[in-house]
Amino acid sequence: MTDTTDGTTSPPEKLVAALTLEEKAALTSGKGFWHTTPVVRLSLPSIVLTDGPHGVRKQSGNGDHLGLGDSVPATCFPPAVAMGSAFDPELLERVGRALGAEARAAGVHVLLGPGLNIKRSPLCGRNFEYFSEDPIVSGVLASALVRGLQSRGVGASPKHFAANNQEHDRMRVSADIDERPLREIYLRGFERVVTEEQPWTVMCSYNRVNGVYAAENSWLLDTVLREEWGFDGLVVSDWGAVNERAAAVGAGLDLEMPAGGSEADERLAAAVRSGELDENTLDTAASRLVRLVGRATGSESHEAQEPDLRTHHELAREVAGRSVVLLKNADGVLPLAADTSVAAIGEFARTPRYQGAGSSLINPTALDSALEALRTRAGSEHVTFAAGFTFDGAETDQDPLRREAVEAAADSEVALVFLGLPDSAESEGYDREDLRLPTPQLELLDAVLEANPRTVVVLSNGSVVDPAPFVDRVPALVEGWLLGQAGGGALADVLYGDVNPSGRLTETVPMRLADTPAFLDFPGEHGHVRYGEGLFVGYRWYDARDFSVRFPFGHGLSYTSFTYSDLSLRADEAGITVRATVTNTGRRAGREVVQVYTGVPGSTVTRPPRELKGFASVELEAGQQREVTVELRRKDLAHWDTRFGSWVVEGGEYTVAVGASSRDIRLDGTVEVTGDETRTPLTLESSLGELLRDPQARQVLQRMLEQAPGADTLSAALSDPGLVSMMESFPLDRLPTFLGQEFSRERIASLLEIVNAQRS
Amino acid sequence: MTDTTDGTTSPPEKLVAALTLEEKAALTSGKGFWHTTPVVRLSLPSIVLTDGPHGVRKQSGNGDHLGLGDSVPATCFPPAVAMGSAFDPELLERVGRALGAEARAAGVHVLLGPGLNIKRSPLCGRNFEYFSEDPIVSGVLASALVRGLQSRGVGASPKHFAANNQEHDRMRVSADIDERPLREIYLRGFERVVTEEQPWTVMCSYNRVNGVYAAENSWLLDTVLREEWGFDGLVVSDWGAVNERAAAVGAGLDLEMPAGGSEADERLAAAVRSGELDENTLDTAASRLVRLVGRATGSESHEAQEPDLRTHHELAREVAGRSVVLLKNADGVLPLAADTSVAAIGEFARTPRYQGAGSSLINPTALDSALEALRTRAGSEHVTFAAGFTFDGAETDQDPLRREAVEAAADSEVALVFLGLPDSAESEGYDREDLRLPTPQLELLDAVLEANPRTVVVLSNGSVVDPAPFVDRVPALVEGWLLGQAGGGALADVLYGDVNPSGRLTETVPMRLADTPAFLDFPGEHGHVRYGEGLFVGYRWYDARDFSVRFPFGHGLSYTSFTYSDLSLRADEAGITVRATVTNTGRRAGREVVQVYTGVPGSTVTRPPRELKGFASVELEAGQQREVTVELRRKDLAHWDTRFGSWVVEGGEYTVAVGASSRDIRLDGTVEVTGDETRTPLTLESSLGELLRDPQARQVLQRMLEQAPGADTLSAALSDPGLVSMMESFPLDRLPTFLGQEFSRERIASLLEIVNAQRS
Repeated sequence: MTDTTDGTTSPPEKLVAALTLEEKAALTSGKGFWHTTPVVRLSLPSIVLTDGPHGVRKQSGNGDHLGLGDSVPATCFPPAVAMGSAFDPELLERVGRALGAEARAAGVHVLLGPGLNIKRSPLCGRNFEYFSEDPIVSGVLASALVRGLQSRGVGASPKHFAANNQEHDRMRVSADIDERPLREIYLRGFERVVTEEQPWTVMCSYNRVNGVYAAENSWLLDTVLREEWGFDGLVVSDWGAVNERAAAVGAGLDLEMPAGGSEADERLAAAVRSGELDENTLDTAASRLVRLVGRATGSESHEAQEPDLRTHHELAREVAGRSVVLLKNADGVLPLAADTSVAAIGEFARTPRYQGAGSSLINPTALDSALEALRTRAGSEHVTFAAGFTFDGAETDQDPLRREAVEAAADSEVALVFLGLPDSAESEGYDREDLRLPTPQLELLDAVLEANPRTVVVLSNGSVVDPAPFVDRVPALVEGWLLGQAGGGALADVLYGDVNPSGRLTETVPMRLADTPAFLDFPGEHGHVRYGEGLFVGYRWYDARDFSVRFPFGHGLSYTSFTYSDLSLRADEAGITVRATVTNTGRRAGREVVQVYTGVPGSTVTRPPRELKGFASVELEAGQQREVTVELRRKDLAHWDTRFGSWVVEGGEYTVAVGASSRDIRLDGTVEVTGDETRTPLTLESSLGELLRDPQARQVLQRMLEQAPGADTLSAALSDPGLVSMMESFPLDRLPTFLGQEFSRERIASLLEIVNAQRS
Repeated sequence: MTDTTDGTTSPPEKLVAALTLEEKAALTSGKGFWHTTPVVRLSLPSIVLTDGPHGVRKQSGNGDHLGLGDSVPATCFPPAVAMGSAFDPELLERVGRALGAEARAAGVHVLLGPGLNIKRSPLCGRNFEYFSEDPIVSGVLASALVRGLQSRGVGASPKHFAANNQEHDRMRVSADIDERPLREIYLRGFERVVTEEQPWTVMCSYNRVNGVYAAENSWLLDTVLREEWGFDGLVVSDWGAVNERAAAVGAGLDLEMPAGGSEADERLAAAVRSGELDENTLDTAASRLVRLVGRATGSESHEAQEPDLRTHHELAREVAGRSVVLLKNADGVLPLAADTSVAAIGEFARTPRYQGAGSSLINPTALDSALEALRTRAGSEHVTFAAGFTFDGAETDQDPLRREAVEAAADSEVALVFLGLPDSAESEGYDREDLRLPTPQLELLDAVLEANPRTVVVLSNGSVVDPAPFVDRVPALVEGWLLGQAGGGALADVLYGDVNPSGRLTETVPMRLADTPAFLDFPGEHGHVRYGEGLFVGYRWYDARDFSVRFPFGHGLSYTSFTYSDLSLRADEAGITVRATVTNTGRRAGREVVQVYTGVPGSTVTRPPRELKGFASVELEAGQQREVTVELRRKDLAHWDTRFGSWVVEGGEYTVAVGASSRDIRLDGTVEVTGDETRTPLTLESSLGELLRDPQARQVLQRMLEQAPGADTLSAALSDPGLVSMMESFPLDRLPTFLGQEFSRERIASLLEIVNAQRS
């Protein structure tokens, strides 16, 4: 980076002006897997981008062709599926700061994350990297992570932009989505992160969006991301997402990763020379890269502290504890007393599955198993272990393992059965085909349950599994997700009540896979996947169709209990302020996630009955009471109005429901919201019904009728409600056909002029 | 029409050549509501088109502005909702012949029907005019009607082409449908009618299809209808469906109805003069009109017999009897014995609702009420009557009526309660908002049931109503639909067992409205409706999601019973021949509708588990046994392959299920079907997985690897199943990015050349 004589850095544009076409072309592609291309003669250095998002995956050694080789040790925090369950931006901001510290120390300038794609189907193989089926949850939590990360001078790269909701055929498939769900569900979280946090970079996804590769999608990258949202950072491709760089740069992509190769650089330069790509566009991309390098190296001058990995491990444990969701707890089987004799059963107790496979795989600095942690907590004498099954299931004789486990269960007061999905079941790169746990594990559980009904199931999984085979027979069910390197300790914390569980589901657990919204069009075929469920993703679907679910969105139990009271609502130009008092009515300190859902009865557009618009995580001592305030932002109340191509807040009465889950509403009220002005003039395309519903227009029509020949027939028709019902969908410009030339287009047009003048 | 000197009619083109531009423009619009425009100086007469489809609605007098005034008497056959339930093309062909005879006698040249839109939602206000939720049922039955009608020298006009599946905003709304469901569900019936019967005309619908008005949709009217299907007739607009005639004629519309007016004619002529519309295109439209007039007047020279209205009334009764669906019959409550004392309760018994409102409203030649018919059949002394409620329900005090009905029920052995939807509930022009019967009727039924549990409910409705409030409490439920002018007699025939019911549901009765496939996107908003359920319409949806239904598609009971045996299947180039033996195991003659469904386990494309591909209605004496043959046409086995834009029969094992409903499968087997050749060359866009799944390609790759530098990494990667799973979605042209320039696009392209050469 050239310094000017007065000590300030020259603007990126100035440096770009000094570059040759070939150098600029080279800048829009990486150097190798993890570096940007330097320009030595102008002292523009290379910076480092590495995989995240729940740890710093800096590849060690020379790397490999696939970019998936060993990496240097780093703290493995819980992946998004787990962290999201905390519903706590403050917590995620702390994780972001820790990630930033480790990245800085490792010389990493941009950490590739967070992932905030919507969980459209529980089958998506990469759901463990995403937060939620809800865009507000995704957006709020991703923003917090970015805030924390960037506060340490490390850039974020929210990903995968956009609509990358499956792994199947992910590098070609077109996500075919109508604009309203695209805006309201799939882009809304990104919009929040970009507008609130100005991430240094955004990573575009592999897939096509409505037929056009994300990397070549100027609507997505230029119109939406830059023009509408004001993004001023750099768009980097997902690794290998660029089909043809000239088209991509033309559409708003700035950096192809990994290196596209000299051949591709040459094709890009040729595209400029041939006029296919405007050189100014290339200059803009190059200057964004230079600016990013400036930001990154500028941060370097600030002191980077060596991170305290021990503290980070403890943070990882705290976060993991906050991520656990207690789904069921009957007969007070949990928390365990320290002197309860416990059989820890299942290979997962000894060999944690704590993160998902693929580019996000962290090489942890330490790894706690649940078994160790249980023994540390309660004393080895109280905790026996039996593996119960092997991960490779079918290939090994499970019988001896099962017998050993049954004996252990029979000899203990409580059996803790650790079940889950093996590594191979969910990964970047492919999707699941069902929600089942492996059969050997289910058979093991049946046998254990027979030996000891006081059985607690603890799950390790990156996305929803179907608990139907056992949920009614086990007194307690703990959703442990993938908890990162300190998850073993966290599970012990929760099971023994050192941590009172407060995680909440960020995705619905359905009764059956066949009930899920995308069941019939996931993962699509022949290069296309139709998002046929539209807006109705996750709980929006189950609520709108009034389907039973196994565990609703937002659900999660505590060892204490909470009551809600004193709802107050106030709407103003900023949104809706929701206040409610929450009381911890039990005998333990605990944390409640207060969820606020809105609805618009009688809305003029299709809407789910309830949509989460805000939430708060609140800690309360036993018996403590606190007023909780949740601000619902006005922009989050808006829907995408396809008539105007803009966000519109509908006016009228809103229902506001405050609850402990989407199906456990404790308080509700209504509040009047002033709508945005949307009245449009009546045109010849307006329908007779639209005209008749406008009192002024009706009056003008009446007067016109009184003067017109042939008016008697129409007057008679308009006073027959049946006929009016039949005819109200007629556009005004079709009326001449039916009413004769006395009602010419011209006459109707002049009527409309009068009406529109009166209305404005 | 000018005759040539040798006595043959001159070709339409010759006549058109003699027309002025203004005359040709005028020809593409009607004269008034029901006539085509004549050209007196060339002796081209005007012909008459009138509404159908279940009777001849020829307007009397001078007509009115809306085209909905009184019409001359004609036989009112059961609307399509009822006739369809017979599942019997032979019966519908007879109806078609009778309609043709009445049309001829009335001087009608084209009868506007049949309607064969798919029942996408039970809420569609015009469902009573349509046959089914299934395209094969719709197509087969509509073809039969057209065959019968045109055999009498009267033209048909299958309608509304296409995707007119709702009334809400019908004149503007765009039906947004992916091509596969559009082809396989919404167009398939039309394709059958057009290719099998060559109807004289096809009527285009009001709505837009994927953004373009049907009347201006050249893809629909020219590409699909004419080029692909070979339609050689005339396309007429639905009445008022033309937005701008120049655009419509340019897209393949021939005739705007009703009269567009001289102003519109002038605009069209101006469009030709300005070059906006090619005059040849106008000539083609005009010549199609001239040809239609020739066909119509040519038919006139054949003798038109005066129709025997008495015989037609009897046919209407026979058809109505075949249309009734016995949904439930417990405890042998039906059929009634002649000497059973019966209370006929409900205004519908006295005042039949026998057809739907709108353009299809027939002025019947006679009208039988169920009450009269019951009394005629059983003797007045056995049948008491109580109105029970009024049609205007809420506005009138229902209590006295209810008391009277309860008394009548209490005093009789059996109560027949006639419930239904009032006229205003379903009509052309608007949709329903729920499936409920009016509350006063439900309250009446509750009261009657308390007085007499031996209660039979008889329904009058044009589309599905929700029987949930009472279905478990009534021993028998008779779906009478709208049965036309002789429906009263037909109901008596069925209730007393003179006709053994054999109607079958052509649409599913769901458990709840919220379960229906289109529930969340019907009727759309702001001018668009997304067909998000795709292929999964009707039973396809309930079966694919394994949802419970109230009564499945194809369901209908009989007073006798049938067994199925001896399934045999044979596949050849024509399709699949299905043979099965059906035995009447009861003590009455009866009729069974044998339904044949196919499935393709392991299909490479999304498919419903079962799709109806053929059916047969078979009459059997008590104890009689008969082998039934159902031919499944090969073209009906095909799916629309979006890769090639063509129909493809997938090769492999097909399941063939023969049953009495979609959920009452009696026999099943499998048969091997030879698929169409679809192998396409591998390209740079092909994925690594696609390449590896091809044994030849894999071998070539292996050889290439052995020679290449850096091949060791790739070889290692390819032998790691986890990595292969992760990478198999990579398009081949992205490999250079990951594998280095040794694997350049050029090298991969030459590999593909070798592979493709070996494969072809």
